Amino acid sequence: MTHAINGAQALIQTLADCGVEVCFANPGTSEMQLVTALDREPRIRSVLCLFEGVATGAADGYARIAGKPALTLLHLGPGYGNGLANLHNARRAFSPVINVVGDHACDHRALDAPLNSDIAAIVAPNSRWVGTVERTEEMGPMAARAFAESFGPPGGSATLIVPADSAWNPGGVAAAPPLHPGPGAVPPERVAAFATALRAAQKPVLLLNHSALTASALASAARLEAFGVRVLADTFVSRMARGAGRYQPGRFLYFAEAAMADLEGTDFMGLAGTSSPVAFFAYPGKPSRLVPEGCRVESLAGPGEDAGPALAALADLLEAPAQGPVVASFDYDPPEGELTPATIGASLARHLPANAIISDDGVTGSLGAWLATASAAQHDWLNLTGGAIGQGMPAAIGASLARPGAKVICLSGDGAGMYTVQSLWTMARENLPIVTIIYANDSYRILHIELARTGAGAPGKAAEGMLSLAGPSLDWVKLAEGQGVRAMRATDAAGFDAMLASAMQADGPVLIEARLAG
Amino acid sequence: MTHAINGAQALIQTLADCGVEVCFANPGTSEMQLVTALDREPRIRSVLCLFEGVATGAADGYARIAGKPALTLLHLGPGYGNGLANLHNARRAFSPVINVVGDHACDHRALDAPLNSDIAAIVAPNSRWVGTVERTEEMGPMAARAFAESFGPPGGSATLIVPADSAWNPGGVAAAPPLHPGPGAVPPERVAAFATALRAAQKPVLLLNHSALTASALASAARLEAFGVRVLADTFVSRMARGAGRYQPGRFLYFAEAAMADLEGTDFMGLAGTSSPVAFFAYPGKPSRLVPEGCRVESLAGPGEDAGPALAALADLLEAPAQGPVVASFDYDPPEGELTPATIGASLARHLPANAIISDDGVTGSLGAWLATASAAQHDWLNLTGGAIGQGMPAAIGASLARPGAKVICLSGDGAGMYTVQSLWTMARENLPIVTIIYANDSYRILHIELARTGAGAPGKAAEGMLSLAGPSLDWVKLAEGQGVRAMRATDAAGFDAMLASAMQADGPVLIEARLAG
Repeated sequence: MTHAINGAQALIQTLADCGVEVCFANPGTSEMQLVTALDREPRIRSVLCLFEGVATGAADGYARIAGKPALTLLHLGPGYGNGLANLHNARRAFSPVINVVGDHACDHRALDAPLNSDIAAIVAPNSRWVGTVERTEEMGPMAARAFAESFGPPGGSATLIVPADSAWNPGGVAAAPPLHPGPGAVPPERVAAFATALRAAQKPVLLLNHSALTASALASAARLEAFGVRVLADTFVSRMARGAGRYQPGRFLYFAEAAMADLEGTDFMGLAGTSSPVAFFAYPGKPSRLVPEGCRVESLAGPGEDAGPALAALADLLEAPAQGPVVASFDYDPPEGELTPATIGASLARHLPANAIISDDGVTGSLGAWLATASAAQHDWLNLTGGAIGQGMPAAIGASLARPGAKVICLSGDGAGMYTVQSLWTMARENLPIVTIIYANDSYRILHIELARTGAGAPGKAAEGMLSLAGPSLDWVKLAEGQGVRAMRATDAAGFDAMLASAMQADGPVLIEARLAG
Repeated sequence: MTHAINGAQALIQTLADCGVEVCFANPGTSEMQLVTALDREPRIRSVLCLFEGVATGAADGYARIAGKPALTLLHLGPGYGNGLANLHNARRAFSPVINVVGDHACDHRALDAPLNSDIAAIVAPNSRWVGTVERTEEMGPMAARAFAESFGPPGGSATLIVPADSAWNPGGVAAAPPLHPGPGAVPPERVAAFATALRAAQKPVLLLNHSALTASALASAARLEAFGVRVLADTFVSRMARGAGRYQPGRFLYFAEAAMADLEGTDFMGLAGTSSPVAFFAYPGKPSRLVPEGCRVESLAGPGEDAGPALAALADLLEAPAQGPVVASFDYDPPEGELTPATIGASLARHLPANAIISDDGVTGSLGAWLATASAAQHDWLNLTGGAIGQGMPAAIGASLARPGAKVICLSGDGAGMYTVQSLWTMARENLPIVTIIYANDSYRILHIELARTGAGAPGKAAEGMLSLAGPSLDWVKLAEGQGVRAMRATDAAGFDAMLASAMQADGPVLIEARLAG
């Protein structure tokens, strides 16, 4: 017989029983009972974040590496709002996350106190499941339900709105860990039909993301390339196994007109772990659906399905070669001269330890690192999936906690980094072995490209001011040191290379401001 | 005859014609046409913010001082999400704001590109009006409508969702500035009935906020105090005229039990510009509605009504004395010894120039400043209204732009300041004469108090870690300097006093980290 517990204890005990191990928290008054319950639960590590966007981005990064949800603890509607952008990104990565949003006590809600808001409405667009715990005895069962729902398939945010009295009242009962579905298996008939269609194609392409980008799924994709299928990964991958000895597919191009030119003549597009490609943004007179006219589109596995076994079955059915191509290891010379995205990439390839994780905030300059590290030590690459910048540093925190001891490298722009600059403090407090590289160009570089693409003519002074981060230039060394993170500034390729080598040896976090040439 | 313009130009021209003068922007690709249109409109000043919460908080602060809306420019659902918390605060302050949220082009929305989300759902809870511009020719009229709607009454956020093609397509037509209602006038019969009820009361209290806290409304409230009515301002005021020579009402107490003890015996509660008081949070066994049993509650003027003339009419009707009490000027001695909230208050009172604005992020320690500055030079006080911390620095930016040349003092905690720490960069870029005072205690101080109030016992190590900002301690001098803001650290009262005196003389922004004793 369990002794009497309150709702908050039932919530935390249930989630700990489910195997939840980390809580990224930015609590307020309405979450004090939950903080107290966490205090008494040694199986869950509480990690304080000084801004909710750090907490939710960390939960996303954690889920991508751990394959299970972390908990976020958020303070009513505004607290969730602060974490919304990175939950949008998590939604696009199909990352399981459990958000616990503290609310006013049930009777208090009707009085519309200052912090009151329509939490259910705010959380709905980025939650695949929402529950409000109206009575304490529902807490344990709803926590178990939230855990199961976060796995989908496909995975996503399960959001539990917890009125303060449901947490503080006695009568809580921990619920048993629920069964939860894994990703769906692809039926053999679909694989067979897909094989038939693929065989009939003249110029087929196979597009991969999510479950199709594990090491074993990529090995099967490599066999398909050897069979004659062109294989591409989505522009933005949730997680991809990379490095020497692994297969590196091509990458779907970002700009619509470039992607369409690249796909010219393609008559079959197969999808594994992803959906039919669309342009990131629309532009006047440019295509939005990135599928050539007349090209047949077939899904082998959707985002909620396990593409790996389906790709293996497909390769077998097609009698593809038993082994496809893999990337050879390559030793880059120490880079010299100006500091550029390419030299940063070369340095990364040189110093990346095995089993590292690269968290890329969708930096304009990260292509250099992407290309160079294909032949580096084996690692995982996490990308910004939903386009809401400010995800790279938080995701690095979560990834680091999910793979203790591994080195995590975060690639961020100076613009993107400012959105969740508070991440640095959590890196310092938890002493996480994260190397953050800031691509510093005093600019929202991508917007200069985008403004030109609108055809609006050369920007005037006011427009130029909206895209520039100069005047004043951000000093990332001070921003990092101000939060307890060791930091340095590189202004040439050789200097950066030496700093990166040193940063890789550090126990805790290091930031390098990479001041780019030009 | 106007020459042909596109939708973006119609939007910006209409708002400029309406008298909108400032746009707080954090644009992305879908807003490039709007950036270009702003570039060509000299009547609207574009102010870049490195995070959307800065933009929305600045719009709130601007509205409180200017009495009219600024424009915010936000990037799809996640961009609005980042600005949500400060729009929550703006909602509680009844501040007029016009949010322009760029969306994907109409045809592109259905394709669910990575940045796609249900923007209408996300913006609804904090918007008093939402419009989506489906066709370019609607842009001008909907912009005019948004301007009018932002005034309410009561004022609030009018949110315009602008698909990119509605902005880039030709066929825009600027609309004429609309009529918009001011705050509602209070009918004389209500004033008369209120006077009758008030006369019958033994121990009446009058509670004020918003339009009841202008200098002239307070002069009328002072007459009512002279007549025998106890007058209180809400705990958190949107804007209050203060300083020597003005009437300073009491302040409604924050904690429920203290407020109820303070109100004991009150048999009549009159409301001017505010609503019936409720506790900020609920606690087990403590009251939520902060009205004594049997006390009659009557509204003289709601938040959307103009309380000033109603208070004047009431004072006349009651034949209250023609003049009520005012606070006398008081010269504080230079403070010495340990640096405390009280010595900070004394220094502020000593050095505050006339016509200054104090923007208080609801800091635990700001009571010292509130008390001391009652007898200082005349100024306006803006408070955190909605409880979502991280509003003080952004609001200071907006207030500064609304009252050029005036000194703005921002009071922030170290915890609260981190939520929108990016504000400092905008202060530097715009060279705004803002003095930011960080009450540095390495702690979410209020949560220590709140945790104790939950009765959950002494916090363990994990809970203590959730409330502490130590390990590492934030270095606000570096955080400010890293963004181009001159900064210093005070560790005793005399040192702070000298720094504040110097900061008040500066042309641009200065930050003082006030490291509190104990």
